[in-house]
Amino acid sequence: MVALDIRVIYGATDQMGVVYYANYLRYFEAGRGEFLRAHGRQYMEIEASGIRMPVVEVHARYRASARYDDVIRVETTLAEIRRASLRFTYEIHRGDEPDLLVDGETLHACIGPAGKPVRVPNEVAQLFGV
Amino acid sequence: MVALDIRVIYGATDQMGVVYYANYLRYFEAGRGEFLRAHGRQYMEIEASGIRMPVVEVHARYRASARYDDVIRVETTLAEIRRASLRFTYEIHRGDEPDLLVDGETLHACIGPAGKPVRVPNEVAQLFGV
Amino acid sequence: MVALDIRVIYGATDQMGVVYYANYLRYFEAGRGEFLRAHGRQYMEIEASGIRMPVVEVHARYRASARYDDVIRVETTLAEIRRASLRFTYEIHRGDEPDLLVDGETLHACIGPAGKPVRVPNEVAQLFGV
Amino acid sequence: MVALDIRVIYGATDQMGVVYYANYLRYFEAGRGEFLRAHGRQYMEIEASGIRMPVVEVHARYRASARYDDVIRVETTLAEIRRASLRFTYEIHRGDEPDLLVDGETLHACIGPAGKPVRVPNEVAQLFGV
Repeated sequence: MVALDIRVIYGATDQMGVVYYANYLRYFEAGRGEFLRAHGRQYMEIEASGIRMPVVEVHARYRASARYDDVIRVETTLAEIRRASLRFTYEIHRGDEPDLLVDGETLHACIGPAGKPVRVPNEVAQLFGV
Repeated sequence: MVALDIRVIYGATDQMGVVYYANYLRYFEAGRGEFLRAHGRQYMEIEASGIRMPVVEVHARYRASARYDDVIRVETTLAEIRRASLRFTYEIHRGDEPDLLVDGETLHACIGPAGKPVRVPNEVAQLFGV
Repeated sequence: MVALDIRVIYGATDQMGVVYYANYLRYFEAGRGEFLRAHGRQYMEIEASGIRMPVVEVHARYRASARYDDVIRVETTLAEIRRASLRFTYEIHRGDEPDLLVDGETLHACIGPAGKPVRVPNEVAQLFGV
Repeated sequence: MVALDIRVIYGATDQMGVVYYANYLRYFEAGRGEFLRAHGRQYMEIEASGIRMPVVEVHARYRASARYDDVIRVETTLAEIRRASLRFTYEIHRGDEPDLLVDGETLHACIGPAGKPVRVPNEVAQLFGV
């Protein structure tokens, strides 16, 4: 698990006074990027090697609301490596408070240079100690 | 089912040259708003009556990519009315092409003035011919 | 002048209950795209010809607020063609109401395939009846 | 001057491979928030006192592009306090590199509880050592 702290800006809120639901997917993405960096890689390097990992499915559950100026913590885990896909899971809390605000997961296909699904490369799998 | 056409702007794309995954949740929301309008109501009127319907869960499947300047069609359906929640489903196509780009669903709690879940009011249920 | 109507979604608002200031730049961009389409071209075609027109300067004045579910009208004008740049101006109203909500302008450099400023091509200048 | 570092996410880029122009206004806003925090105040506290400081004008100059995964530094300065308005200026660099990517300014009206312009309160002016 890798944690990333993000401060909620005004522009992320909506007129209900809380973070707009689509913006949590941005926080998930920031968490994924931090996960890769923490394992010594950047997503851009993986792309540069000809492998893309687009999101093919996302699921999020909204349990409580983050608000303007909150510092939220995005905890990202590589939950599963399948043959040609990866699954990340996310938990978002307000700072180190125990209550879960939002949790979710993203499923990523592994797409090779020819635009076809390919097996997750060993070098990527190894990144994650698998 | 209610359809809404939306043109993809540059700002909705990302460096992969396609619509960024979080932005489809904005299209879902635009579709929900159109669904309500098509049934003679605005979401703001429902809010004004003291009822909020926040998204408590979202699920999206990304099958193909929308691109800059595409006109996408968001088809929104009220799929289910439960005791204190509603479920909308969405299908996004490029114009009237048959291939599905993205589909998904949102689950909404029905929250009363006191901030507690309440039964979906008859007037809301009736909106949808239920 | 070319007009484009856009409906304000929930995700474009902030906790002050009005459209977040950065989102008007998205409406400006949508207006520019419509301007080009109305003159028979798409921005992508211009890009495909090797010419890019990135924004090098933006200026916006916020006079009154657009709100959720408003249909705003973005009126875009090509105000000036200089040697290697273009200037668009924008006026945003709520529907056909006379009061101005936001106005502004964008200055665009004309960048050739080599990444250097180039003279605005005749074919682009002609688009605009110049 | 108060500095804030922000990492560019994928969702902030557009298909040109650089940060979309409207997103710099979000970075400006994050910089303003950091400026207030660095002076011991939160924007929400100011709002709670009945004073709002909406942006009435923004100006940005785009000199070079930030890209995905860059850590950009937003340097925010309170440039001027007028009778009923404030002006902030911003400079954005890539980390501690000398080249300016974007600079700009925002002008804010000072609006009292009755929705009318009011003199910038002493307590706000004092925040900034004025």
